[in-house]
Amino acid sequence: MIKKSTKKADVLLFASPNNSADMRWFARFACGDPFIAFTAKGKRIAAITPLEIVRCRKESNFDIVLDMSEEMAKLRETQPEAGTPELIAALAERYKVNSFLVPPDFPSGLFVLLHKLGVKLEVGGTPFFPQRVIKTEEELEYIRAGNRASCAGFKAVEKILKESTIDKKGFLKYNGKTLTSEILRAAIEHACLDAGGINVEGVIAAGGDQGVDCHCAGFGPIRANELIVCDIFPLIAATGYFGDMTRTYLKGKASPEQKKLVNDVKKAHDAAIEKIKAGVAGVDVYRSTVEFFKDLGYETGYNDAGVPVGFFHGLGHGVGLNVHEAPNLGGRSLAAEKLRENMVVTVEPGLYYPGIGGCRIEDVVVVKKDGCELLSKHPYKWEIA
Amino acid sequence: MIKKSTKKADVLLFASPNNSADMRWFARFACGDPFIAFTAKGKRIAAITPLEIVRCRKESNFDIVLDMSEEMAKLRETQPEAGTPELIAALAERYKVNSFLVPPDFPSGLFVLLHKLGVKLEVGGTPFFPQRVIKTEEELEYIRAGNRASCAGFKAVEKILKESTIDKKGFLKYNGKTLTSEILRAAIEHACLDAGGINVEGVIAAGGDQGVDCHCAGFGPIRANELIVCDIFPLIAATGYFGDMTRTYLKGKASPEQKKLVNDVKKAHDAAIEKIKAGVAGVDVYRSTVEFFKDLGYETGYNDAGVPVGFFHGLGHGVGLNVHEAPNLGGRSLAAEKLRENMVVTVEPGLYYPGIGGCRIEDVVVVKKDGCELLSKHPYKWEIA
Repeated sequence: MIKKSTKKADVLLFASPNNSADMRWFARFACGDPFIAFTAKGKRIAAITPLEIVRCRKESNFDIVLDMSEEMAKLRETQPEAGTPELIAALAERYKVNSFLVPPDFPSGLFVLLHKLGVKLEVGGTPFFPQRVIKTEEELEYIRAGNRASCAGFKAVEKILKESTIDKKGFLKYNGKTLTSEILRAAIEHACLDAGGINVEGVIAAGGDQGVDCHCAGFGPIRANELIVCDIFPLIAATGYFGDMTRTYLKGKASPEQKKLVNDVKKAHDAAIEKIKAGVAGVDVYRSTVEFFKDLGYETGYNDAGVPVGFFHGLGHGVGLNVHEAPNLGGRSLAAEKLRENMVVTVEPGLYYPGIGGCRIEDVVVVKKDGCELLSKHPYKWEIA
Repeated sequence: MIKKSTKKADVLLFASPNNSADMRWFARFACGDPFIAFTAKGKRIAAITPLEIVRCRKESNFDIVLDMSEEMAKLRETQPEAGTPELIAALAERYKVNSFLVPPDFPSGLFVLLHKLGVKLEVGGTPFFPQRVIKTEEELEYIRAGNRASCAGFKAVEKILKESTIDKKGFLKYNGKTLTSEILRAAIEHACLDAGGINVEGVIAAGGDQGVDCHCAGFGPIRANELIVCDIFPLIAATGYFGDMTRTYLKGKASPEQKKLVNDVKKAHDAAIEKIKAGVAGVDVYRSTVEFFKDLGYETGYNDAGVPVGFFHGLGHGVGLNVHEAPNLGGRSLAAEKLRENMVVTVEPGLYYPGIGGCRIEDVVVVKKDGCELLSKHPYKWEIA
């Protein structure tokens, strides 16, 4: 049975904080390997290997940190074949927990084995920790730091494009080499690193029709007079929070179609930010952007080659310990959900047409009572001579 | 109903390739968001958003790539509230799959909902894809590349330590600044980036007693005459495969205790590599290392402060699309498992004592019929004048 998570229920997680935003939020501790974490009698309890125990006791949010090896050794005196499920069952008994609420991504293998051992589990809703959706001042600052790392990437791109020259064939030359997406992405990654961010999910620096395939990272030479989509969403390793911004550039001279495309995306971007405030449904902001582009004559669908064109992705998504999390701006599934104060969302309208290219402009805002505030700040100048 | 995975059964995965090694292996495609993947009639089938569909059709390993939005829209004509579970149920019916084998980390929420919808699921064993444990020549080369990125990090550390001077207080000065773990880790990360690797799980460059807490990343000033543990396990973004190597350094002059510690760890490292070959149980190699250190008089356990000391972690672990995967060298749970040809494991004995410091030496080997071959190559010179 699926149940909406409630603050009262005791929770059980088995995940790696580096792989699970819920675990990272619950543990407030970075760790690459999964471990046992649960609540009992209002306390946060972890069972973790000796390898992590010193850091965990020092850095984490747990009230009680158990040594998993010691616990397992004890358990195996009476149950030689005991493993993680048996240990969890024993801990549930010791701490008198009748039933655990587990996150929707709790591993099924463990779920089934615990069920066999008579440990009652209920699967919580999404978001599992509703508190994660409403950001604290501290979290807002972590997200700003993520976006500052994105901006460091944009500055690197702008510097390279400025210093690049255009050869007779229309390719860009930088430091005597042909400028490629790979060179741009490497420069972005180095710049983000210096700002404390790593691009765990990759970096997008895609020119021309590659930018139309809007999650294509970009490969090979960058050409003059083509739109270059740069989407940078670094993780700040120290906090676990992401930034997420996109700018679109062009080196050389833009065509009238390109100029119109970029200007209209920017207008849609401004209009969406105007609409965002507490009480508005995310899907309504999304729909107004869909209408906005439709009214300007932009068609969304599939071209003859079966390639999606137009505005075919959501308007935005929550950002925090995940680069994509609740709430959602778009996606009919969340039509009912109203934005609430201190929710954080990206605003990233985009248009994509083979031949003209792709344009996406993305910032991050925090929802406020009467509007929203930018958590990202970077110029929108896109034509670089 | 846990069942050993069999090649015959049809499998179902719902995960992000960037978060699930099984999905990355199955899809041969990098993607940040989870999507539906399954087998039917000997074909690999994906249902993915339009956002990823062009890349997925171009780059992935799937025979059939369905547009999740189109499929969902069709489904919602008759089931307005349909979501991922209903879509999976519909696809199971369309492709006439009676029962799916799902990986142990398949999300419980989806597992429960699919069960309610009458989709038969069995949870597979670990490893879910046994083929992943035996590496192909291509995979071995990917892991070598990961280790080359680690080596780039070591070279950066060695250069910095060589160029550093020791001030009166015993701190290291580099470029006029006090050398810190942060400076070393940043240099490692930049060097890895240039070798195609990102340190998604962090980098360890920990001096003195910080190196005793063997997953401490290292913070603050590095001192002369202290052991500096550098553990570098970069992900090669292009392939998804990891490298994993550790070297221990010291700038200045080592004490007799430090010299003995490092030399004994190196002897244990050599002895373990001598023992590794097809047919040997990983746990036996581990136990021989435990005995080796015991015979030399090194005590393993907890000191008065409750800090684990001695050789308190495993001898090694598999490496591939996960930095930690099967097989395991240590951990009684896998006592029965014998090493097989073309399995890949780290060999990383270590000793840790507050006051003396920590030392770990880690290389990666591929198991062969009559021994093993190094997949990592870097000198062991550790004392830097």
